[in-house]
Amino acid sequence: MIASLAARYLSELDMFMRQIVDSAPQEPEFAVMLRYPLGWVDAQGSPYNHPTGKRIRPLLLLLCAEATGGDWRQAIPAAAAVELLHNFSLIHDDIQDDSPTRHNRPTVWKIWGRSQAINAGDAMFSLAYVALQRLAQSTATSPVALKCWDIFNRTCLELTRGQHLDMRFESQQQVTVDEYLSMISGKSAALIGAAAELGALIGSGSENTAAHFASFGYNLGMAFQIHDDILGIWGDPSVTGKSAATDIISRKKSLPVLYGLSKSPELVQVYAKPNFSDADVAEAVRLLNSVNALDYTRQSEEVYYRKALDSLGQGSSGRAYDDLAELSEALFARTY
Amino acid sequence: MIASLAARYLSELDMFMRQIVDSAPQEPEFAVMLRYPLGWVDAQGSPYNHPTGKRIRPLLLLLCAEATGGDWRQAIPAAAAVELLHNFSLIHDDIQDDSPTRHNRPTVWKIWGRSQAINAGDAMFSLAYVALQRLAQSTATSPVALKCWDIFNRTCLELTRGQHLDMRFESQQQVTVDEYLSMISGKSAALIGAAAELGALIGSGSENTAAHFASFGYNLGMAFQIHDDILGIWGDPSVTGKSAATDIISRKKSLPVLYGLSKSPELVQVYAKPNFSDADVAEAVRLLNSVNALDYTRQSEEVYYRKALDSLGQGSSGRAYDDLAELSEALFARTY
Repeated sequence: MIASLAARYLSELDMFMRQIVDSAPQEPEFAVMLRYPLGWVDAQGSPYNHPTGKRIRPLLLLLCAEATGGDWRQAIPAAAAVELLHNFSLIHDDIQDDSPTRHNRPTVWKIWGRSQAINAGDAMFSLAYVALQRLAQSTATSPVALKCWDIFNRTCLELTRGQHLDMRFESQQQVTVDEYLSMISGKSAALIGAAAELGALIGSGSENTAAHFASFGYNLGMAFQIHDDILGIWGDPSVTGKSAATDIISRKKSLPVLYGLSKSPELVQVYAKPNFSDADVAEAVRLLNSVNALDYTRQSEEVYYRKALDSLGQGSSGRAYDDLAELSEALFARTY
Repeated sequence: MIASLAARYLSELDMFMRQIVDSAPQEPEFAVMLRYPLGWVDAQGSPYNHPTGKRIRPLLLLLCAEATGGDWRQAIPAAAAVELLHNFSLIHDDIQDDSPTRHNRPTVWKIWGRSQAINAGDAMFSLAYVALQRLAQSTATSPVALKCWDIFNRTCLELTRGQHLDMRFESQQQVTVDEYLSMISGKSAALIGAAAELGALIGSGSENTAAHFASFGYNLGMAFQIHDDILGIWGDPSVTGKSAATDIISRKKSLPVLYGLSKSPELVQVYAKPNFSDADVAEAVRLLNSVNALDYTRQSEEVYYRKALDSLGQGSSGRAYDDLAELSEALFARTY
């Protein structure tokens, strides 16, 4: 179903995003830096189409607009804003994490250096607001546009709070499960919650409906991230495209690991080693299984997923509910 | 006169800015990173007041609001937004320029590292928008608030364009005077232009009046930056607090230098040296003087300054004109 949604929405979204980026002041090299991460040009500026992400957030937003009785085209500025904001955060993330590649291409900082990449990210951030402000030119009423702006601002702050915690945890000896949940709440769930909220607000004009959708999106985002944590340890490499137990190897402080560390002193000992051998990785997985970390994490995912569907049920019914429930299901269609 | 304005405006501005920063999600260390660059706390988070800049941009904005018949209090959200945006740009600038100190204190990246500083800058950027969005809660009408948002977005894009050029020029063999003017237009003049435009739009509700003030602020900003370039070479060290010919020593591609390089092959030869001795610096100044680079730059400053006052005259008259002309004069009260 995502494929049929994508067909309806994505070409219009793409056209609008290009208009927004074209509206920025044009400096040749700068223009390339903004279009490259969106997959529209190569590093030399030659047009091509590179697959860069599934545009899940704008798709969710547009579907929520339609599901709440609105015209999805009216929500295109908000959908573009959410996608541009996501891309801004990736540009800065890659600098902060020192990541050389994304989507099988060199990252922006790897090509143009860190200073220019910081600035390109800042420009992408500005473009997200340029896109959102276009709500004022659509048929959305002024109060709706101003309220969307407020939601977006709070989301940006949540993103930076989550990112702050994520970076801090790297050097923090002990991270609790609650701290971790607070981090992913900002870093991952906030933007998915905002996508659903913005879509519903534009679609319905009702803050009450939008609040139910905010909760739907937020809890879906939490479940989505926790699902990712499961894949990072127990995911099938042939499906995820990553090595087995990749999050163990990278010592990622994901939910199952933090839970395991809180339950298994033996696992704490393994994690005290400066380097992991293959045997250490296998032992870590064995210890996680011995404290039922997979069950714990699955249950945690399930709780958020149920909350998401409950909130959805409070904000919608009939066909709209069915569509969004199906979309939510599809988001989790990766095997583990 | 700036002092008497400051007394009227600054305490209310400061109070509002603190409210905005307090409205962000509170994580202890993150909270310090946001308040430190604003001069409100030290690096450990203990409250104190450190002088961090003269708040020229918000002062100009508030005066323009009043000069165009408005209530300056209504413009406080925009004034705070402009100041927070300026502070965001300084945090990222300092990372990009590798600057260890600002206002006699270590920079944000120097204390918390580059990754956290990038993120703190992003949060400050978001806070600028949080402040501006509060226009929607003031007595400003929705169309004015939405138009201010549009102006602000375009300004952010101009800032990033200017910053892109500024960084590119460092490694660019030859920079023309026109390229330089395009760079300072984005990096310096755009935000001062926006301050005047936003103030006038909120004050008058008239886009026509605001356009005259935009031109006033923009040209004032150009003149201000060019004035700074003069001080960087011919400024009196006892007044500027910097060493004599500081912009020669740092090889800054400022307007008089670019002009001199285009007129004096001997100066090009001096600049081809990998390192400058004291004699080289003296020789560079002598060569600049021999092609009348000071006169050229002064004339350039004067042209922008006149344009600024002309635009001001088209947008205002009487007391308002006198006040703003006096403020403009005071901005240039540093001797050279």
